[in-house]
Amino acid sequence: MVIDRDNCLRILQENEEFLILSHEHPDGDTLGCAFALGEILKQLGKKRAFLCSDEVTADFSYMTDGIQWDEVENPVVVAVDVADAKLLGGLYEVYGDKVDLCIDHHLSNTFYAKNTFMEDRAAACEIIYELAVSLNVEMNLYLCNCIYTGLSTDTGCFRYQNMTASVFRIAAELMEKGVDFKKINKLMFETKSKSFLELEMLARETLEYHFDGKAALITITQDMYKKSGSDEHECHPITALPRQIEGVLIGAVIKEKNDGTFGISVRTEDGIDAAAICAKLGGGGHKGAAGARFDCDYEEGKKKLLKVIKNSLEGI
Amino acid sequence: MVIDRDNCLRILQENEEFLILSHEHPDGDTLGCAFALGEILKQLGKKRAFLCSDEVTADFSYMTDGIQWDEVENPVVVAVDVADAKLLGGLYEVYGDKVDLCIDHHLSNTFYAKNTFMEDRAAACEIIYELAVSLNVEMNLYLCNCIYTGLSTDTGCFRYQNMTASVFRIAAELMEKGVDFKKINKLMFETKSKSFLELEMLARETLEYHFDGKAALITITQDMYKKSGSDEHECHPITALPRQIEGVLIGAVIKEKNDGTFGISVRTEDGIDAAAICAKLGGGGHKGAAGARFDCDYEEGKKKLLKVIKNSLEGI
Repeated sequence: MVIDRDNCLRILQENEEFLILSHEHPDGDTLGCAFALGEILKQLGKKRAFLCSDEVTADFSYMTDGIQWDEVENPVVVAVDVADAKLLGGLYEVYGDKVDLCIDHHLSNTFYAKNTFMEDRAAACEIIYELAVSLNVEMNLYLCNCIYTGLSTDTGCFRYQNMTASVFRIAAELMEKGVDFKKINKLMFETKSKSFLELEMLARETLEYHFDGKAALITITQDMYKKSGSDEHECHPITALPRQIEGVLIGAVIKEKNDGTFGISVRTEDGIDAAAICAKLGGGGHKGAAGARFDCDYEEGKKKLLKVIKNSLEGI
Repeated sequence: MVIDRDNCLRILQENEEFLILSHEHPDGDTLGCAFALGEILKQLGKKRAFLCSDEVTADFSYMTDGIQWDEVENPVVVAVDVADAKLLGGLYEVYGDKVDLCIDHHLSNTFYAKNTFMEDRAAACEIIYELAVSLNVEMNLYLCNCIYTGLSTDTGCFRYQNMTASVFRIAAELMEKGVDFKKINKLMFETKSKSFLELEMLARETLEYHFDGKAALITITQDMYKKSGSDEHECHPITALPRQIEGVLIGAVIKEKNDGTFGISVRTEDGIDAAAICAKLGGGGHKGAAGARFDCDYEEGKKKLLKVIKNSLEGI
């Protein structure tokens, strides 16, 4: 059932025990939501616990350190920033059909929860912030830091296309309350691991331009992960790189999976449909970012990809 | 003379002709100020002209295209975001002692102008925005785009330590008025030139770790500029890189000047004084970022630098 804010507030107010769930491979927004909601519920005198299928990485220790969760017996299960029950990862089997309340900002939410409070926002933490205001809890430094983490990470530090006036206004409120934005920005946006730098170097050495520089291609292999000590989870900024190059309309990254097959990520300029390109290779996605898997070896797959890209460039 | 906002407003209101000056190698803030002020004065029915010693690069064409400046005979000369008359570059000789009004946000302003309106803000465009509000001009899309350009570029797209609640609030206002933030962010923060990518690759190949990874060092040579087709102006993001690496407390970049001598840029973590490090090499700067010039060749200079860095690390 889709519920409105008042009903969401009522569930939080009228129950005494909560189990908060974050999505697998937890990021700043799902964790910001979870720990902010934990603080809100604590202030309301409720018992609350937290589960996530994957480890919370050390860079979030400013949110997680010293937090005491409660023992809960028969809790209301709340999933935050979890668009699909399957994104609960290892918790899916036990909790997939037991989520009482989902608070989310993804339009792609599958409404797997008994009650879903969904708003189309840049970050789920925006929704949590507004719930905190409605519930009249103290917007203390800890709560500010949790909410800032979600707002900033889901918007690339206020830079992505999903930015809104509302996010800027909430950020202003958090700044006035002394949010540790310098520390958080440094951890989330400035620190680069040595292994990532190595991987990026190796990947960038494969950079190829095609079709008068209108397309750019990078390849990432399993061997590069081994050499750099990095892994697939650090790939994200590299995936964005080819399309960021001056004059490039279509950027693609070919990634070798650990089973030896290859997948591609395609990013395109406005006016070129990445999903259409990937559809021709058996994949799909969004207009600006899409993906597919090669059903053949690297050389043949690359040839197919370049042919589809060529056709796409000829169509504009 | 230092003047307050009311007196600054009076100068803008009580005169009819203005010549607006930006600083040399113009960036988003000085240009955002100049073109915003041009629009404000136009709306007030004043004549205004614009000068800058260096070419305005094509990425700012959304501000400069189609702008008609006026002919002015005896204008009030206004410098925007120009902390020191020498930063007028090629205009210094003619205008260095003829600036009637300086509107600036640098604490380091040398008060070279007849009248200086200076406030300690993240961007000079913040001040221009508030002047526009006081002057009751229409905050049209063009004006929003100019002001957003200054706010975003001087704060690294709302990420740097100079961020304030005020900047977030103004950004929210601009968003509500439909500012072209997607286009501007893409131009200012996403697009990488091919020459910069080449330079960065060459520079990163020189990356060295010292003292258990607590210091990192990169060298940029004139030869790299030649090979990549890049130049000193594109160095900025590379200067920041060594200190951004996980575990690095002191990051340094050694840059060969076009006369064959070497300069260094040093960035440090909180608690390590970059200015003190550079002072030992005859330079200076701020606590977190400072510079110096080698008075010797590369090898000897690097040896000296590493010794000073070692001492500095031992002191913490």
